Amino acid sequence: MKEKEKRMNTGSKLKIIPLGGLEQIGMNITAFEYEDSIIVVDCGLAFPEGDMLGIDLVIPDVTYLKENIDRVKGFIITHGHEDHIGALPYVLREVNVPIYATKLTVGIIENKLKEFNDIAKKTKCKVVKFGQSINLGAFRVEFIKTNHSIVDAAALAIFSPAGVVVHTGDFKVDFTPVYGDSIDLERFAALGKKGVLALMCDSTNAERPGFTPSEKSLGRTFDTIFTEHANTRIIIATFASNVDRVQQIINTAYRFGRKVAVEGRSMVSIIDIATELNRIHIPDNTLITIDEIRNYPPEKTVLITTGSQGESMAALSRMANGTHRKVSVGPGDTVIFSSNPIPGNEKPVTKIINELFLKGADVIFQDAHVSGHACQEEIKLLYSLVRPKYAIPVHGEYKHLMAQGKLAEALGVPKDKVFILRSGEVLEIDEESAKVTGKVPCGSLYVDGLGVGDVGTSVIRDRQRLSNEGIVVATMVVDSYSGSLVAGPEVYTRGVVYTKESDDIISEATEVLTEALTRAFDKGTTDWGKLKGIMKDTLNDFFWKKYKRSPMILPIIMEV
Amino acid sequence: MKEKEKRMNTGSKLKIIPLGGLEQIGMNITAFEYEDSIIVVDCGLAFPEGDMLGIDLVIPDVTYLKENIDRVKGFIITHGHEDHIGALPYVLREVNVPIYATKLTVGIIENKLKEFNDIAKKTKCKVVKFGQSINLGAFRVEFIKTNHSIVDAAALAIFSPAGVVVHTGDFKVDFTPVYGDSIDLERFAALGKKGVLALMCDSTNAERPGFTPSEKSLGRTFDTIFTEHANTRIIIATFASNVDRVQQIINTAYRFGRKVAVEGRSMVSIIDIATELNRIHIPDNTLITIDEIRNYPPEKTVLITTGSQGESMAALSRMANGTHRKVSVGPGDTVIFSSNPIPGNEKPVTKIINELFLKGADVIFQDAHVSGHACQEEIKLLYSLVRPKYAIPVHGEYKHLMAQGKLAEALGVPKDKVFILRSGEVLEIDEESAKVTGKVPCGSLYVDGLGVGDVGTSVIRDRQRLSNEGIVVATMVVDSYSGSLVAGPEVYTRGVVYTKESDDIISEATEVLTEALTRAFDKGTTDWGKLKGIMKDTLNDFFWKKYKRSPMILPIIMEV
Repeated sequence: MKEKEKRMNTGSKLKIIPLGGLEQIGMNITAFEYEDSIIVVDCGLAFPEGDMLGIDLVIPDVTYLKENIDRVKGFIITHGHEDHIGALPYVLREVNVPIYATKLTVGIIENKLKEFNDIAKKTKCKVVKFGQSINLGAFRVEFIKTNHSIVDAAALAIFSPAGVVVHTGDFKVDFTPVYGDSIDLERFAALGKKGVLALMCDSTNAERPGFTPSEKSLGRTFDTIFTEHANTRIIIATFASNVDRVQQIINTAYRFGRKVAVEGRSMVSIIDIATELNRIHIPDNTLITIDEIRNYPPEKTVLITTGSQGESMAALSRMANGTHRKVSVGPGDTVIFSSNPIPGNEKPVTKIINELFLKGADVIFQDAHVSGHACQEEIKLLYSLVRPKYAIPVHGEYKHLMAQGKLAEALGVPKDKVFILRSGEVLEIDEESAKVTGKVPCGSLYVDGLGVGDVGTSVIRDRQRLSNEGIVVATMVVDSYSGSLVAGPEVYTRGVVYTKESDDIISEATEVLTEALTRAFDKGTTDWGKLKGIMKDTLNDFFWKKYKRSPMILPIIMEV
Repeated sequence: MKEKEKRMNTGSKLKIIPLGGLEQIGMNITAFEYEDSIIVVDCGLAFPEGDMLGIDLVIPDVTYLKENIDRVKGFIITHGHEDHIGALPYVLREVNVPIYATKLTVGIIENKLKEFNDIAKKTKCKVVKFGQSINLGAFRVEFIKTNHSIVDAAALAIFSPAGVVVHTGDFKVDFTPVYGDSIDLERFAALGKKGVLALMCDSTNAERPGFTPSEKSLGRTFDTIFTEHANTRIIIATFASNVDRVQQIINTAYRFGRKVAVEGRSMVSIIDIATELNRIHIPDNTLITIDEIRNYPPEKTVLITTGSQGESMAALSRMANGTHRKVSVGPGDTVIFSSNPIPGNEKPVTKIINELFLKGADVIFQDAHVSGHACQEEIKLLYSLVRPKYAIPVHGEYKHLMAQGKLAEALGVPKDKVFILRSGEVLEIDEESAKVTGKVPCGSLYVDGLGVGDVGTSVIRDRQRLSNEGIVVATMVVDSYSGSLVAGPEVYTRGVVYTKESDDIISEATEVLTEALTRAFDKGTTDWGKLKGIMKDTLNDFFWKKYKRSPMILPIIMEV
């Protein structure tokens, strides 16, 4: 009764605040706030864009959560993909609250946290089953079974005194999943019948018509490929976390009497966790180590590997360019890409395909993959069951969210009840109204090596300049009493012009610089700021006139 | 009679030598050599890959042509795209021989050479008509009408005493072209009947089944879009050189009573040339300047612009990010991408689409483009007509050439008569046999600003290091007599860590470095090589231990 009273709406609105996601695809993290309770759904990382030079990872700035740490009740994680869990090790350092997720998701998170010893020790992870609810302050969160390209993916029904929000997580509708049950459409329907305030639905494939094929349809594809390539070794690259895909490859391999080796650290690790948690079933005497593969005829082996996105350090890249210590690819190998390139990876993937062809391998890179995300008809199905008052498309670029917004409108959600939220925007919402009322601090932090956030835009700008033009360092030594030139100037370049020619260039640049400085000293200039200005301007001029190039100029004056 | 005798095969073979193309997509240039005659088909440039930092263009190394300049008779250019003509201004400096091409192609080349005044003056360009042949030493080259995404594209029949080679250039089969005639299939058939030694056929779309739709089919698409967006301004981005596309947009605009402005330097220039050469027909009072656009209601205007590939400096990018001086995009604008992203450009194109959506514009980026390259059925048609003894797939990545190779095999060319040539390989070929017999020098030269070839792999490696890690410069001054430390060490960083924090970091690094150097000086070390080594190692250690980063270290010792 007390519980129930607490849940009665006191007139407050629910606040929905994405702290990342739209501006930095992958950084999925959304705060839900009702009075003194805050819960956070997902905590993902993004991989750096091409212009984020030298950056390893991008994580969300959670200043808002830190400032309200007393009210934050926990993280609810929908599934175990990096774009939903990847930032946890960094964010938990400052916002250490319990994590709630399904079994495999918790397994993957705990394994990840092991690498960050201090965090692992102090973080609580709780396994939640499908159909089960957890109470967190003013919120009750129910986990609902869905299907996705990773096992144990969940949608969430977030109950608040202001109404129920359904968050799909990443999902597809798979009536014949490889592991476990089909998506719990019945539960979505029941929620819809009772009344749902808002639907936050995966937009990844909102531009694609139709229905995403079942994961199981690939089983037949693999059977066909194995039949057609009965006399070659088979190497299959796919996403490390796609346990169902690995299961299907193993099933086919087993049927064809082939042994299977798994290569790539992340894949080996996920398979271990999935095996331990009973999310994958590997027949006895099927799995062998990468070292044992030489003990079998090639046509009796299958290698499942990471690197399907053309990642330069992954196993497949190393096999393709001949730097893998244990596997070399050549004629008599069939390489299958069971994956599509993620936008932006088209070029590196194509590069590897070409390299594999050049090495003489047969390469299959079309039609051996199905998406883990809902296409238009599935999205429409969800909307039709959940019948939300408001639509808040999530997970995708702006154009994907727009595409889902249009679908929602076509299904009867009025245009002014469709909200495409930018990071940090505060949507205040209840049955009466919904409105963006403000903005909280948010943004991206760059992780470079051990540093988090110490490489900002100014450092990146410097790196961009250095990367395109190189650097010219000019040094000279002046007398501390008289201010007169004692040694130098000397000129050094890195990344500007080819060394064989550079001797001439450098003596020419030094000469020009010496003249300019001599003129300045003759005029009695001793101010270091002015002298550095002259060094910069002179060298800028020199390299622009001679080469139409603008290297970074670093003038250094030393004093003796 | 004398002529005929000269043409009789004296037992020599024809040599076909691609000097670029496969390793550097875009750099299309192929030498054909028979005894003392060399002709060169196309002379294209490539745009830099992501890891060619700071590079503007990539052009072929034509050392082989320079070394055999006395035998080189001319360039034969198939059409006016950059990947077929772009390197001419650079290559002509050293290999100045006449250029032979069709009318629009010559127009575009001459316009390009204008920017390189010295070259323009000394280069001869000759216009060749379809059906016409030119004699160049042992060769006779006939120009054959094809269809492509630029007007006046030609295939070549290259007659040599060793046999006839048909080179398609870039082509598609368009039975209803916008300008001019359909591809001259009759001529290909006639050549095939007489006997063709080898077919060098465009592979770009060799992986795609079916038949590329006619350019004219887009006319209906534009009509539909204009009807559906009757109340908005329409902005259409497409390739600058696609004159037929511009023609169709103008036709539709005229039918709908809209004025047309063209924006983007390259597009304006091509339209001017095409107008002058009667390759485009613009109704009176249709074209207006970009400045006049404000004099008309938005729904009565169309803007055709460059930037369909997401090029950051092109007109559309500037409109999308709000830096265009004359056009700002917003609600009430419909932006159409009449283009597909070229592989590698997916990400920048998507970025602009998202920016346009964010600005409130409606964006159409699917189904408003047709390819200019032949799909599988067209390639098969060509093979069936030409019936070559040998297949030498050209124009594409390795996987595209492989795909065409498989088509050729399916059409009856034996596998050992399909040649996929790598740059520099010399294929010696005649009716009796064909074999790769050697390799000539070839490769890529980077153009950066005014420099050609002065930025090589070592400079690029430096730029890559700088781009990911930044640079640390350490300086000190030593006494020239005693070798002892007089001033410093001082430490400077660029692109390594954020400045606000860097003061502490720099004093810490300086301290560590001072200690290491003091130890060295105490031990009597005066050798500069050793001292520089200590500076490098100490700072390397420091930044790795502290940040897991490896900036480039530049140690500088000055002497007073």
